[in-house]
Amino acid sequence: MAGMAEQAIQRATEAYRLRDSSYVTLVRQGEPALRQMQSDIDQIAFDLLAMEQPMAVDLRLIVSMIRINADLRRVGDLAINIAVRAEELTDLPPIEIPVDIPRMSALASAMVSKALQAFVDGDTEKAESVLVLDDQVDALNRAAFPALSSLIKHQPVSTHQALHALIITRNLERIGDHATNIAEDVIFWVRGNDVRHHHDLTV
Amino acid sequence: MAGMAEQAIQRATEAYRLRDSSYVTLVRQGEPALRQMQSDIDQIAFDLLAMEQPMAVDLRLIVSMIRINADLRRVGDLAINIAVRAEELTDLPPIEIPVDIPRMSALASAMVSKALQAFVDGDTEKAESVLVLDDQVDALNRAAFPALSSLIKHQPVSTHQALHALIITRNLERIGDHATNIAEDVIFWVRGNDVRHHHDLTV
Repeated sequence: MAGMAEQAIQRATEAYRLRDSSYVTLVRQGEPALRQMQSDIDQIAFDLLAMEQPMAVDLRLIVSMIRINADLRRVGDLAINIAVRAEELTDLPPIEIPVDIPRMSALASAMVSKALQAFVDGDTEKAESVLVLDDQVDALNRAAFPALSSLIKHQPVSTHQALHALIITRNLERIGDHATNIAEDVIFWVRGNDVRHHHDLTV
Repeated sequence: MAGMAEQAIQRATEAYRLRDSSYVTLVRQGEPALRQMQSDIDQIAFDLLAMEQPMAVDLRLIVSMIRINADLRRVGDLAINIAVRAEELTDLPPIEIPVDIPRMSALASAMVSKALQAFVDGDTEKAESVLVLDDQVDALNRAAFPALSSLIKHQPVSTHQALHALIITRNLERIGDHATNIAEDVIFWVRGNDVRHHHDLTV
């Protein structure tokens, strides 16, 4: 499921980078499978809770599974949002966007990948490395606002493109947040303590 | 906890409406209590799973509790995002914003309130009424983009205000999404079937 979510991010970014809406179609086509997988995983978690009556670390694992599952589904939704904005941009004249969206997307995608690898390996150090990447994504997101508002000011004809780009950066930042949630759930599962809320809010 | 989340939305909206950053301070001050409550509720859910080994409807209730808890916490985060944007707007010259943010906020807040009332009453019809409200919030959100880009075009001096307003509307739309998640969890808990994914995605 994480692989599908990552692929959706990458395809949405290709749609943006190559101005090629066939990638948008691919992102949309992948969505039903992601939905179905979320339902299946929830059902498995639910059956495990009902039938195995797990305790301690096993219980934390299953609770984490339920949360991570919801996070991955949201990542898929956010990738669709990005793809739709990329499609809108393809219909507008190409301009130089003063935000490195492919880099921000590569970081967000790496966060999802690392968070899931941490989950598979039960590796809390790897999970913590995700939290560091989130600071980088947040910094890029914060820089996007002045860069894009300055673009609008100096080149008003590019307003629509700037607004779509702004929304894409917000969606990438949210993907980073979901990857952070996953990493925190890995730490919760392995160590049994709750690391959430130790990180500054991003706005 | 839902009351705290709603109060945060209302205070953030007052900060916007009255251009009064003392409301922003109130939203920030409320955050630690919301964090603490999320941890406490998670712990209760976890203890119930570990000690009571609940089955069927009880198990669904507790799984729903864990999910709803995460949604309410995110609503609190989004209210802070809105409050921060309201504060930025207070520092800029006041302009006429062509989006009825207080109305959109009242709808989003009503969704949270109704979704929680549905949870308290185990009332799936009330839960379904939340899904209808979400369509209204989505419509307002979709209308915001052309209205604000047109404002920027015709009144470039208001670009910053328009961008902050755009981000506020996205945050309100996300609050609506979380209320929708809660309503769907109520239906899952009571009926045992999964109503998620029956609704169109909002972008």
